[in-house]
Amino acid sequence: MTGHTVEPSVIDDGTRPGETPSGAPSARRDPPALEQIIGPAALRDLDRTQLDHLAARIRRFLVEKVCAAGGHLGVNLGVVELTIALHRVFDSPHDVLVFDTGHQTYVHKILTGRADGFDTLRRYGGLAGYPSRSESVHDWVENSHASTALSYADGIAKSLQLKGELAGSGRPDGRRVVAIVGDGALTGGLAWEGLNNLGSATAQNRPVIVVLNDNGRSYAPTVGGVASHLHRLRGRRDHEGAPMPEPRPPSAENLFGQLGLAYLGPVDGHDVAAVQDALERAAEACRPVVVHVITSKGSGYPPAECDEADRMHGVGVVDPATGKAEGPGERTWTGVFGEEMVQIGARRPDVVAITAAMLRPVGLAPFAEAFPDRVFDVGIAEQHAVCSAAGLAMGGLHPVVCLYSTFLNRAFDQVLMDVALHRLAVTFILDRAGITGPDGPSHHGVWDVGLLGLVPGLRLAAPRDPARLRELLREAIDHEGPTAVRFPRATAGSDIVAQRRVGGVDILHGGDHRAPHVLLVAAGSTAQSCLRAADGLERSGIGVTVADPRWIVPVGTAVVELAARHRLVVTVEDGVRHGGVGALLSQACADASVTTPVRHVGLPHAFIEHGTRRDLLDRCGLSAQQIAAAVRRGLDGHPPPPPARAPAPDPVIHAPTTARTGGERP
Amino acid sequence: MTGHTVEPSVIDDGTRPGETPSGAPSARRDPPALEQIIGPAALRDLDRTQLDHLAARIRRFLVEKVCAAGGHLGVNLGVVELTIALHRVFDSPHDVLVFDTGHQTYVHKILTGRADGFDTLRRYGGLAGYPSRSESVHDWVENSHASTALSYADGIAKSLQLKGELAGSGRPDGRRVVAIVGDGALTGGLAWEGLNNLGSATAQNRPVIVVLNDNGRSYAPTVGGVASHLHRLRGRRDHEGAPMPEPRPPSAENLFGQLGLAYLGPVDGHDVAAVQDALERAAEACRPVVVHVITSKGSGYPPAECDEADRMHGVGVVDPATGKAEGPGERTWTGVFGEEMVQIGARRPDVVAITAAMLRPVGLAPFAEAFPDRVFDVGIAEQHAVCSAAGLAMGGLHPVVCLYSTFLNRAFDQVLMDVALHRLAVTFILDRAGITGPDGPSHHGVWDVGLLGLVPGLRLAAPRDPARLRELLREAIDHEGPTAVRFPRATAGSDIVAQRRVGGVDILHGGDHRAPHVLLVAAGSTAQSCLRAADGLERSGIGVTVADPRWIVPVGTAVVELAARHRLVVTVEDGVRHGGVGALLSQACADASVTTPVRHVGLPHAFIEHGTRRDLLDRCGLSAQQIAAAVRRGLDGHPPPPPARAPAPDPVIHAPTTARTGGERP
Repeated sequence: MTGHTVEPSVIDDGTRPGETPSGAPSARRDPPALEQIIGPAALRDLDRTQLDHLAARIRRFLVEKVCAAGGHLGVNLGVVELTIALHRVFDSPHDVLVFDTGHQTYVHKILTGRADGFDTLRRYGGLAGYPSRSESVHDWVENSHASTALSYADGIAKSLQLKGELAGSGRPDGRRVVAIVGDGALTGGLAWEGLNNLGSATAQNRPVIVVLNDNGRSYAPTVGGVASHLHRLRGRRDHEGAPMPEPRPPSAENLFGQLGLAYLGPVDGHDVAAVQDALERAAEACRPVVVHVITSKGSGYPPAECDEADRMHGVGVVDPATGKAEGPGERTWTGVFGEEMVQIGARRPDVVAITAAMLRPVGLAPFAEAFPDRVFDVGIAEQHAVCSAAGLAMGGLHPVVCLYSTFLNRAFDQVLMDVALHRLAVTFILDRAGITGPDGPSHHGVWDVGLLGLVPGLRLAAPRDPARLRELLREAIDHEGPTAVRFPRATAGSDIVAQRRVGGVDILHGGDHRAPHVLLVAAGSTAQSCLRAADGLERSGIGVTVADPRWIVPVGTAVVELAARHRLVVTVEDGVRHGGVGALLSQACADASVTTPVRHVGLPHAFIEHGTRRDLLDRCGLSAQQIAAAVRRGLDGHPPPPPARAPAPDPVIHAPTTARTGGERP
Repeated sequence: MTGHTVEPSVIDDGTRPGETPSGAPSARRDPPALEQIIGPAALRDLDRTQLDHLAARIRRFLVEKVCAAGGHLGVNLGVVELTIALHRVFDSPHDVLVFDTGHQTYVHKILTGRADGFDTLRRYGGLAGYPSRSESVHDWVENSHASTALSYADGIAKSLQLKGELAGSGRPDGRRVVAIVGDGALTGGLAWEGLNNLGSATAQNRPVIVVLNDNGRSYAPTVGGVASHLHRLRGRRDHEGAPMPEPRPPSAENLFGQLGLAYLGPVDGHDVAAVQDALERAAEACRPVVVHVITSKGSGYPPAECDEADRMHGVGVVDPATGKAEGPGERTWTGVFGEEMVQIGARRPDVVAITAAMLRPVGLAPFAEAFPDRVFDVGIAEQHAVCSAAGLAMGGLHPVVCLYSTFLNRAFDQVLMDVALHRLAVTFILDRAGITGPDGPSHHGVWDVGLLGLVPGLRLAAPRDPARLRELLREAIDHEGPTAVRFPRATAGSDIVAQRRVGGVDILHGGDHRAPHVLLVAAGSTAQSCLRAADGLERSGIGVTVADPRWIVPVGTAVVELAARHRLVVTVEDGVRHGGVGALLSQACADASVTTPVRHVGLPHAFIEHGTRRDLLDRCGLSAQQIAAAVRRGLDGHPPPPPARAPAPDPVIHAPTTARTGGERP
């Protein structure tokens, strides 16, 4: 591996001491300043020395900008040379570059003219942390869920072939399709489905280039048989310094060959010339081919290289000299969960935990330390996480499957069919539920209530505070059927003591008025805002009961009975309204002939952009003031503004430019 | 391959002409009558000749019973010897046999004491067509969606290992875990996730036996790189007659070895002794191992063996002599769709079709014949079907993804993130939507409205008749964004002409009363029952408007305006009520301050058993009479019976016996 270690305080950008980049003695030897790069064409004429300087400059830029804003650091430091080589060999967007899990595209953004956006990285209205079609014609895929790139590439290649535009179709300007995918993403089943189709006998004349960015890790080291296999292939890198061999035709030598794809590599991913050579050979092969590129996550930045946990995969605001945040962080929901799991694990030897390649991010590190035999990392494989949990429960254990809420989407069928159809006692922990923040539309966890409400027999809890998280987690794990607990990516705040508990529902405020006007049903972490809204309404003489149902699915009779005793019900939830807490309560009220009108405050039926959680919640109508306003409108008989349709001018709503198709691109 | 061809009229059950089974000269030479088998122990002492007789007898029984009742024939004829061998080598339920896609378990049912149930096969209250834990302790997995078995087995083995019960844990009576999976199911990503975990370095001391039942087909021949790979492995069967080799340790020779699983085979799956020998060796290996068993779908029954389409995979009632149904079938929704697709394909050269291993069942055969380059079978890989469709749309084509409604569950994340987030014009055809019938809880397509309603920007249509299917399909494909069309597994019936169309909504009945009482919103195929209900209500003096919204997601303003002009709205849908048409309309009415009460008639929040579609719809409250009754109750202000909670005594609701865990089994 070419050495790239760079002291953060003295990162080598190609300038010598006493020189400034602008005052360099030879303009020929200096690569362009990053902010001056308006597109990949700027890379074409650079020589090897200039490329090395450019790489160092990009690395310094990444460390500076990401440490200041937070974002994906380690993974982007690892793809500097690879991305430069991609943009030198392929002519984007004529050639199509599809990046899997778009957090690896910071360098791509810099090289396609977006360096000047990094001061607004991941801020509301600023540069997205993932590819974005409204930012650039060089971006194709905005979804950052893993393992998709091979399937996208298969579809794009099929369409270009049918239209006669694909390379190898006979046209001199045939377009190439390139998927860049990590080794971690190969543990996901969708990647297998993609490989199986790319290597099909009928696909042999449809060239797709799969660039396998093998850094040996997801967050933690990649798991499973495929990880061992890649490790063995890595060991075969015996041609260093020798000319790159031709792409090997599909053979029994490796997994990709067994599946019908040619294989080329392994290649040192930090040597631009070597990667470039490999990519050029792959492009000439005119058949499906895997280029195996070995990279090192965090390369060139010692704090990342030394971080055993995840090579500083993603960071908050940190000191670039140390890679550490200043001061201790506040206690998060994830942290509270992690602590309680250790308590439960000690009490219940049958409790085991499952993670889909995210042991630390979901707070399972303490549990894994206490009970190393009782935690299973299954890779980026949510389907297997849930289906194997069903097996664990059949075998007599109680599995706790810990996922980000947004990734539950991948395993809906397994929750429904493998767990619930069999009435198995499996608990799902949905971290990052609700508005997540700077990671944008594909990371908000806003569909889980709608999904899990569809699952017969499943109970879903939404704790309002740390004490309730501990309590509901214990209740969930003691329940003899499927359960789930959802909580946001946020600090957990202080406990909110209830006045009393009625039929499992916590009354947080009011409820003792002679003739209470309004019932505010506060789902989970919205309780604090609902209480503030109630304070304001009471000052206007509106009697308000604030109730926390704790278990939001199914709707309990106690909530319906409370609803019957009020003039108006307003439900408040940090999730989409379709199939949400409000919709479920309305249906339960109608079934019970309770005629109190029920208004639903929740997130709009739209894809929501990146920004801070607090800011986005406010923009979506979930501030205390807006909740109070919704109550007043409901009492006036005026309709609340219909959040199901996003107001067009509000930029919070993700509105990609009119769907561009490849056909309309160059 | 051992020959097994048996003339249907003279199937060899081991009796000679003039002999009857009961009057056979030597009791020793006769296997037990199938109805007398109460468990697998009956197989233990049979010799080779007896086993051959038993196999022949089972085959004749299958042909007779399945041709009479309808069901899965070809696939079960292919596993007769394999299943006998499994039950001779393993001690079920002490050893755990997990069958993937449970339609391959008829022989297993016979050998575990259920032969006498085959006269009620797939009938309401009768023997299920899939494994059922309420039928037998030998059944573990009731979900018949494909590719799950490896993950279940992984979880069960992990739990038994932690409890010290797994074979190889040191106990003499250690339990074995066996997953029986078809080659077709290996094209599904979940199977890959399972293999990746089973072959992991940490799993090498956790023996799971994977029996790969390789018949080269799903319905049609298996596709993709893995199919080619298995084909090559099959060709290595060079040891016929020679002793079975030891299981090969993981090696580069085959895909399974690359992933860390030992490999044994290929084995002639129609030779009980050979399979038995292989299974015994696999059990002794005490490590994860794949036993590659070659079987022939439809084996021993010429009409199935000669059926190029799908080897009589699943059949309706047919003549056992010919394998053909009597008389022409009525025109189905699937058939209408297939015809219209050819018309659209001729008009729109950019339209392409995708199937997940079900070209014929979803009606795409005529399209494939007309436009062979424009149809893609991606294997049992719904995630890839949808994600590659996103790629096809990015490339400028309009893909039509044809799935069974229940299998859409597998691809929810791809519909949301890969298609809708990018606002791509992809059309989903959801065949077998609503109550499906004899295939039971995992095949009813009742969650699609709840799921697709969560997807921003997606439009979902439900045609009421053949003319609307054609019309809505054209509208869907002409729309510049994601669309879906759902229809049931049924005959399509006659067209239902509307009185008029208002704002896209078809008024089928009434609507011209001075003071109409009730608005019946009929979703899709419920229109006929709603019209009959309206007739009855009108005779009682209740004015009824019957409206078909045609597009059920999103809710249009015309329906809300109609609702405002009635005293009561009753929505009727062939799907679960959660997030359904009724729930969406209620929310839209509340947002618009329309106060007309809305009652939701739909399917219960439960898993629904097998039976005929008509019978199940009646039992779930969707007959004309029950719709009318719901209207009367709504008008009386009495609550309709809450279908969200299934009445306990009604056996239509799937109520497995209390969840049994492996720990409680023998």
